[in-house]
Amino acid sequence: MSNFPGLEGRTFGVTPVETVRKLSGLEFLQGLIDGTLPVPPIGRAMGFLLKEVKPGYACFTCTPTFEHYNPIGSVHGGLAGTLLDSCMSCAVQTNLAAGQGYTTLEYRVHLVRGMTDKTGEVRAEGRVVHAGRRTSTAEGRIVDANGKLYAHGTTTCIVLDL
Amino acid sequence: MSNFPGLEGRTFGVTPVETVRKLSGLEFLQGLIDGTLPVPPIGRAMGFLLKEVKPGYACFTCTPTFEHYNPIGSVHGGLAGTLLDSCMSCAVQTNLAAGQGYTTLEYRVHLVRGMTDKTGEVRAEGRVVHAGRRTSTAEGRIVDANGKLYAHGTTTCIVLDL
Amino acid sequence: MSNFPGLEGRTFGVTPVETVRKLSGLEFLQGLIDGTLPVPPIGRAMGFLLKEVKPGYACFTCTPTFEHYNPIGSVHGGLAGTLLDSCMSCAVQTNLAAGQGYTTLEYRVHLVRGMTDKTGEVRAEGRVVHAGRRTSTAEGRIVDANGKLYAHGTTTCIVLDL
Amino acid sequence: MSNFPGLEGRTFGVTPVETVRKLSGLEFLQGLIDGTLPVPPIGRAMGFLLKEVKPGYACFTCTPTFEHYNPIGSVHGGLAGTLLDSCMSCAVQTNLAAGQGYTTLEYRVHLVRGMTDKTGEVRAEGRVVHAGRRTSTAEGRIVDANGKLYAHGTTTCIVLDL
Repeated sequence: MSNFPGLEGRTFGVTPVETVRKLSGLEFLQGLIDGTLPVPPIGRAMGFLLKEVKPGYACFTCTPTFEHYNPIGSVHGGLAGTLLDSCMSCAVQTNLAAGQGYTTLEYRVHLVRGMTDKTGEVRAEGRVVHAGRRTSTAEGRIVDANGKLYAHGTTTCIVLDL
Repeated sequence: MSNFPGLEGRTFGVTPVETVRKLSGLEFLQGLIDGTLPVPPIGRAMGFLLKEVKPGYACFTCTPTFEHYNPIGSVHGGLAGTLLDSCMSCAVQTNLAAGQGYTTLEYRVHLVRGMTDKTGEVRAEGRVVHAGRRTSTAEGRIVDANGKLYAHGTTTCIVLDL
Repeated sequence: MSNFPGLEGRTFGVTPVETVRKLSGLEFLQGLIDGTLPVPPIGRAMGFLLKEVKPGYACFTCTPTFEHYNPIGSVHGGLAGTLLDSCMSCAVQTNLAAGQGYTTLEYRVHLVRGMTDKTGEVRAEGRVVHAGRRTSTAEGRIVDANGKLYAHGTTTCIVLDL
Repeated sequence: MSNFPGLEGRTFGVTPVETVRKLSGLEFLQGLIDGTLPVPPIGRAMGFLLKEVKPGYACFTCTPTFEHYNPIGSVHGGLAGTLLDSCMSCAVQTNLAAGQGYTTLEYRVHLVRGMTDKTGEVRAEGRVVHAGRRTSTAEGRIVDANGKLYAHGTTTCIVLDL
């Protein structure tokens, strides 16, 4: 059970590496959206879902609630980091062939506007900037329904054979 | 109720700004440790607690579990970001006088080793690097019981009047 | 005298703060392009020039040469950082009114492809991402004549009264 | 000829890759200090020298001058980035065996205090934080003769076979 809206009726879990290995990055991520693969536990803990993928792009949605609050009454900066890490690394993953994996080496987060439980659903959109043979970079942005920017960032991932 | 170990019996919530305003950063953070102030909701969602503060330093603890997992079976990078953002910004907060607040402008996370549900309790330790009049920077590290490093990072915060 | 191409016949120096204070960010930067204000010494040391500004945007050009090389025979990563810091912070500056200044708090550089003395002229283009009252963020990219990407990054600046 | 103090009488150039390949990282860097290998051109352009290396550590020195100034009369942030990139990546290089090379994937720079031509000689000290098989991270600090901090940062490098 999740404390967060929008995750009702979903199955939570991880996907065995033998299954992951047979799928391209895009196939794997599409399975998470379609529900043929389980939503990861972190999605339940933090209340966010993968919504859309295409080559070089991934989008998650999340509705900030009181459950994301820091001690002083606004959304903790870790939510923005979690959403940006997710959308940026999955954008990188969309470019991977079956048998390839990746590891995120680092990500960074600019927090430009506070989120609250009044913000409504936000979209975290990741886009690949550089797709290299060994490493890739991506950028991400978190925006609300009106396109207002809350956070942005970049990441560096390394591509590996699974 | 929290799905995570170590948070049993704690009260969760946020502290009103009128209360925050009367306390120095160190007094406020010590209240979170002592339990005179409630544990923030994000601590329940992600399963981490403030354990120790002193001037220029803050330490959180967390035990990674299956609940933190990403789709491919290891701890999501958002946990490291959440813990580092917490310990680095609270380290900055230890230096603030009553009536002063802060906002985190940006943070960045190096993920150097994956965490799993076998890692055991980790410590996220933040230390102020530069304490300026208007802005402060801090660094943070996540280590396990043996001192093995899992992630590190830095942050930039701006200091404000509440 | 500069060791670098494209800077022939330019005057080098800094602009007194009393002059800077009377100009909007855009007027000041346009003066650097037009030559009514001197090219800064760093432009001579590293061989780069401001080429174009408009609200929220700044572009520098530079032709990498042997003079930029590191010990192992490719362009030092400090050139990309210098160009990105320049274009990103000047993009922020284009939004400032007369009497406002700024300080760069931090910048970061992704080096995605090595530059050499065969690369030819590159453009470092900065664009504002978030223009806030107290702080601004910007992103930048270094591309060659064919649009090939060499480096990218982001920055955080704080806005001040001069 | 260099416009900068402290580089008199040094030879400038790059080292052929066949020579680099035969040396450990520490041997190569010690050769740059001893003068058995040439100072790189970037050292002449920006006026800095490698001073000390030991396993996991590298230190450069530089005396900021008017030649490093930005348009508004203080040292350009690109100098801090160039020095930090140098000391952090060379710290990583100290751990490499003969036949191994590295590429800097990204670096970031916190500018916490402005440098001027009155600052005097600064030291840029890099230290390895994580030395992995495929990737390494390092941190760096720029301090003056009194230990006052001007800038700090971190980097991610990937280790390669030459």
